[in-house]
Amino acid sequence: LYEFDADTAVEKIADGRYRAEITDRWNTFAGPNGGYILAIAARALSDALPMPHPLTITGHFLRPPKPGPAEVRTELIKAGRRHATGAATLSSEGTDILTAVATYADLTTASGRTVLFNEPPALPDADSLPDPLGAIPPGIELPSIAKRIEVRVPELPGFLKGKPSGDPSAEMWVRFADGRPQDPLSLVFFVDGAAFPAVVEIGEFVSSTVELTVHVRALPAEGWLACRIRTRHVESGYAEEDFEIWDARGSLAAQSRQLILIQS
Amino acid sequence: LYEFDADTAVEKIADGRYRAEITDRWNTFAGPNGGYILAIAARALSDALPMPHPLTITGHFLRPPKPGPAEVRTELIKAGRRHATGAATLSSEGTDILTAVATYADLTTASGRTVLFNEPPALPDADSLPDPLGAIPPGIELPSIAKRIEVRVPELPGFLKGKPSGDPSAEMWVRFADGRPQDPLSLVFFVDGAAFPAVVEIGEFVSSTVELTVHVRALPAEGWLACRIRTRHVESGYAEEDFEIWDARGSLAAQSRQLILIQS
Repeated sequence: LYEFDADTAVEKIADGRYRAEITDRWNTFAGPNGGYILAIAARALSDALPMPHPLTITGHFLRPPKPGPAEVRTELIKAGRRHATGAATLSSEGTDILTAVATYADLTTASGRTVLFNEPPALPDADSLPDPLGAIPPGIELPSIAKRIEVRVPELPGFLKGKPSGDPSAEMWVRFADGRPQDPLSLVFFVDGAAFPAVVEIGEFVSSTVELTVHVRALPAEGWLACRIRTRHVESGYAEEDFEIWDARGSLAAQSRQLILIQS
Repeated sequence: LYEFDADTAVEKIADGRYRAEITDRWNTFAGPNGGYILAIAARALSDALPMPHPLTITGHFLRPPKPGPAEVRTELIKAGRRHATGAATLSSEGTDILTAVATYADLTTASGRTVLFNEPPALPDADSLPDPLGAIPPGIELPSIAKRIEVRVPELPGFLKGKPSGDPSAEMWVRFADGRPQDPLSLVFFVDGAAFPAVVEIGEFVSSTVELTVHVRALPAEGWLACRIRTRHVESGYAEEDFEIWDARGSLAAQSRQLILIQS
């Protein structure tokens, strides 16, 4: 069993109720990663809804998650021929942590026109590039998520060298450290878990996600995922962060936007 | 009473239950506009939640709305010091049409850093520009929404001249025809109601919204709103549509993304 599957596993205990465990293995410096938490809710929904893949899922983060036992309550809102819509709320110690609404589909049957007005990141081969976590000073203990994923960047981010670049955008490769294949569920995690928030490059190191919406746009091909992160508008302490994940075939596999609150 | 306020009015009939009316005055060629329907749900949430403004709201469109009596069921999920989160479902004739989840805030108190890495649309004065609806051939009856809003464009869209430009993006001015001032609620409508879908410029005239997320980023100033619409990825029959609304002071007032299904 791959790490991501073990740590997002849900056990059905009644109709619309699932037992889960928020592990401490996907921690950032601020605790369990939000994409990881959303993926637990998404896994419960993939059981509760009659469609297999998250097409669009939105999570609102109510409280910072902590490792420990959790429960997901799900509700089927509508099951149609093409789409199924439902809601999920993840709670821990009796307190709601995350509420989500999602529409699922069967992406193996998606057909129709394809036209792209954008390009995947033009990244050199992943094997020729550095691991940005290698630049974290030796005195700082890496959070556990650093052991779960592998990241490669074309150049070390400015903020890790103590000089934020002033440009809140970046491109990188990412994959699971244990070789787990990509699927729609892993994309729900990677849009949040693959990178530091873009605003670290403007010197904002403490931020929290208010809301995260992920669109899974294609079944991802095998191999490294090419990612692009960007913030374009910081206003009155809020910012959006856009994330794209492209697969090895040059398909846009997922696209996300989150609204973050900067806590400076 | 302005048209938008009359037509999004909700009447509380019990805790978490509101009576509403989907009017036929905000119809596109395909029926009541989705942004209008979402604004009805948002209005119910602004009563049900202890915060006044939609900061981020996501609607999943379950069935095509029809004019007629409607009901909104709301649920308060969490009320915090800074944010309040809730859910709303709009039904009509006993059938769910829209389900939404939202986090509300008081935008009059939003403070914190502002840095923009984007520019508002560089549009000539609205008064010097044409109304694109003037280009609709005389034989075609305009849908009712055309009487509720005023739109000005720098040049007539290609698709209205029978020649889609091939570029699914556009910029335009918009405001209410009856002079209603802008507020966060009107932005929830305008991100969907102000423009034809961007994909009309690649010849796709029939599409439906699966999901729409709106971030209200600032209290909008008086006057015309400058809008930018863009689709960058059409894949297997799905596309995202991004929308920005900038106010007269040059603030990003709202940003949205919707996932649409192209039905060609």
